[in-house]
Amino acid sequence: MTDGLNMSRRLRRTAYTKNVEAAGVSGYSIVNHMLLPKGFQKTVEEDYWHLRKHVQIWDVSCQRQVEISGPDAENLIQLMTPRNITTATIGDCYYLPIIDENAGMINDPVMLKIGEDKFWLSVADSDVLLYAKGIALGSKMDVTVSEPDVSPLAIQGPKAEQLIAKIFGEQIKHISFFKFGWIEFKGTQQLIARSGYSRQGGFEIYLQNSKLGSDLWDTIWEAGIEFKISPGCPNLIERIEGGLLSYGNEFTRENNPLEIGLGKFCSLDGSVDYLGRAALEKIASKGATKEIRGIIFGGDKCPTCSLPWSVMVENKKIGEITSAIWSPRLKKNVGLSLIDQKYLSAQQPVEVHCQDNKIRSGEISCLPFS
Amino acid sequence: MTDGLNMSRRLRRTAYTKNVEAAGVSGYSIVNHMLLPKGFQKTVEEDYWHLRKHVQIWDVSCQRQVEISGPDAENLIQLMTPRNITTATIGDCYYLPIIDENAGMINDPVMLKIGEDKFWLSVADSDVLLYAKGIALGSKMDVTVSEPDVSPLAIQGPKAEQLIAKIFGEQIKHISFFKFGWIEFKGTQQLIARSGYSRQGGFEIYLQNSKLGSDLWDTIWEAGIEFKISPGCPNLIERIEGGLLSYGNEFTRENNPLEIGLGKFCSLDGSVDYLGRAALEKIASKGATKEIRGIIFGGDKCPTCSLPWSVMVENKKIGEITSAIWSPRLKKNVGLSLIDQKYLSAQQPVEVHCQDNKIRSGEISCLPFS
Repeated sequence: MTDGLNMSRRLRRTAYTKNVEAAGVSGYSIVNHMLLPKGFQKTVEEDYWHLRKHVQIWDVSCQRQVEISGPDAENLIQLMTPRNITTATIGDCYYLPIIDENAGMINDPVMLKIGEDKFWLSVADSDVLLYAKGIALGSKMDVTVSEPDVSPLAIQGPKAEQLIAKIFGEQIKHISFFKFGWIEFKGTQQLIARSGYSRQGGFEIYLQNSKLGSDLWDTIWEAGIEFKISPGCPNLIERIEGGLLSYGNEFTRENNPLEIGLGKFCSLDGSVDYLGRAALEKIASKGATKEIRGIIFGGDKCPTCSLPWSVMVENKKIGEITSAIWSPRLKKNVGLSLIDQKYLSAQQPVEVHCQDNKIRSGEISCLPFS
Repeated sequence: MTDGLNMSRRLRRTAYTKNVEAAGVSGYSIVNHMLLPKGFQKTVEEDYWHLRKHVQIWDVSCQRQVEISGPDAENLIQLMTPRNITTATIGDCYYLPIIDENAGMINDPVMLKIGEDKFWLSVADSDVLLYAKGIALGSKMDVTVSEPDVSPLAIQGPKAEQLIAKIFGEQIKHISFFKFGWIEFKGTQQLIARSGYSRQGGFEIYLQNSKLGSDLWDTIWEAGIEFKISPGCPNLIERIEGGLLSYGNEFTRENNPLEIGLGKFCSLDGSVDYLGRAALEKIASKGATKEIRGIIFGGDKCPTCSLPWSVMVENKKIGEITSAIWSPRLKKNVGLSLIDQKYLSAQQPVEVHCQDNKIRSGEISCLPFS
C-alpha cells in the first residue's frame, strides 16, 4: 500500500518500521530523511475519535535528536535561539524557536537538558545538525554535534498514563508536563518525557539502541490491548484543532517567531545574546505584520491542502491557509493561516479559495479551536 | 496514484508539478523537502530503454540551489570542500564533495560559478544551506546564503541535443560537458548546463522564475514530440549501471570522499585549506578501508533495496549493497556497495543477502558496469 513512495535506503527505516508494517501501515510521509507513518486501517476521522478516547502508539523516530555536548554546548544552543535556556535544569524539556540571522525560523525543536553540558534537540523537518555543526566550526567552539541512536516512540491519548504506569510503574505519574525521567527496559535506562504532538496527553520514550525497538513496541502493544490501543500517527484533524503548528507547513525560514505565537519564548530585553537578536528586536519594535490564527469555514469537505490557499476579505488577500481539514466534531472545515495584523479579530468573516477551485465562507478563530 | 504519500505544503510542489500530474505521474520521492517524480505510465524497464534511445524531460527542481554571494563567497565554499575551487572560471560546473570536520560527506553538489562572487550549489538531499549559513555566521563572513527561485529541468537522452538546438538554437552545441551558457526564453535569460543525472547525455535548464515553469515544460514537450519525448525521472537501472552515486543511499556522513571514488576531487597536498583537511589527510595517509564497487549477481529479480544488504565472502561480511535492481540489458541484478579494501578485485565471488531472505551469488565489478 505504499505505491506512491519509492523506497530506498535514503528514506530511512526506523527502529519500529517492521512493527508498523505488521500493524498495516497505509502510507508514509518523510521527515528528516526518515519514514513517518501517515495512517493505518482507520480513516483519519476514525483515528481522531480513537485518539481522543483511548491510547495510541506512534512511531515518531523521525523526530531525530541532535546531540550537542561539551563545554560550549549551552553557548552554542543559546546562539541559535532567542529563548533564554540558561534557566533550564536537568530533566527539563524546552520548546525552542531556532532562528537565523534574519530571525527566520530554522526549526522548532524540543530541547532536552540531559546533563550540564549535554543536550538533545528533538527536531522538526530540517537539518539542524548541519546548522549547529556549521556555527560550531565557524566559531571554533568546543562541542560535539552528532545524531545519536535514539528512536522516539509516542504513547498518546487519555489512557496513556494508565498504560505506561502499568508497564513501567506508578512513579511515572510524577513526571510533569514537559519534564522527563527514566524507566528501566530490558536492563537499560530509557528516557521518558511527558510530551507529544497531540493535545490528548501522553508520553514519548526516547529509546536509545534501535535494536530494542521491536521489543519496546510489542511490550507496549500487548499491555495496551485492554486499553484498546491502536497504531497511529500525528492526526491532522486533532493537530489543526489543537493549533499545533508544523515546520514547513505553517511556517518556514520566511517567518519569524513573533508571527507564529512564539513571542513568549523570545528574550527581547537583551538578557541573552543570540545570532538573530538584532533582526528580531527590530521586528518586535515595529510589531509583527501578521499572526497565526485558525480559520473555520463551511461548504463541503475541503480537499487536501498541498499548497497555500488564499484567505480573502472583500477581494483583498489577508492571509494563506497552509493546513486544513474537515472537523467531524465541529462539522466544519478548519485551517491554520498567517493573517494580516489588521484582520486578526475573531469572527472576522473571510472567504477561502481552496485548490478544488471552490470558494468557501468562514471566519477567523482563536487557537486552539474550541 | 499517490496514495502512499500524504501531501502537504511541507512536501513542496515544484514549478512543473501541474505538468507532471497532467503527464500521469505514478508516484513521488522526497528530496530537499520537495517532490521528485518517480515514475509515469511506463515500467522502470521500459523507461530505461526509452532513455537510452530517445529523449526525456525530468522535473528535478528538488536539486535546490544554495546561492552564496558576496566578497567571502569563494572563501566560504572552499572551507566546505577539499576540491580546489580557485581554478574555476565563470561558466564552469564543478562536482564537489562537501565534508565536515571528520571528513564525513555532507553532500555532493554541482557548483556553478555564476560570477566572481556568486555561486550556486545544486545540492543532493541535505540542507547544505544551513551548513553554509552556520559556518558563515560562526566565522562572521561577508556573504549572503539563500535559496533562489530556481527550478532545474533536465532534458536527458541521446536526442537531447537535437531537441534543445531545435528550440534554443545551434549555439547550445558549443556548450561542453559540465559547462553552462545562457538561452533566451520568453524574454528572459536562462542558464543551461550540459549535465544531468544520467549517462545518456543532455542538459539541465536552471529556470529562474517558477511562474515560467509550465510554459517551459510545454515548449519542450511540443518540440519533443518528433523525437518521441517522454516524461521521466532519474532511472534506477541506468543510474546503477552508470555508477552514479546517491547521497543518503551509497554514502552518508559516515563516509569520506576517498571511499566513494572522489579522491580525484580532494586536494591533499596542502595547496588549499578546508574544515575537514586534517581528518581527510589522516585518512589518506592510512589509506581508505573500503571503496565503492559494483556487484553483479544472479538469481531471480531482486526486491527493492530499502535497507543495506550484506555482501559476504566465506561467511565474512565484506560490504553492504545500498542500491540494487534487475538490469534487463545485462540480464542480472546489479548493485552498488562499499567493499572492504582486501576484496576489491573484479570478479571476486560474493554472496548477497537480500531483504527477501534469498541469498544470491555474484561477483565484484568495476564501475560503471560495462
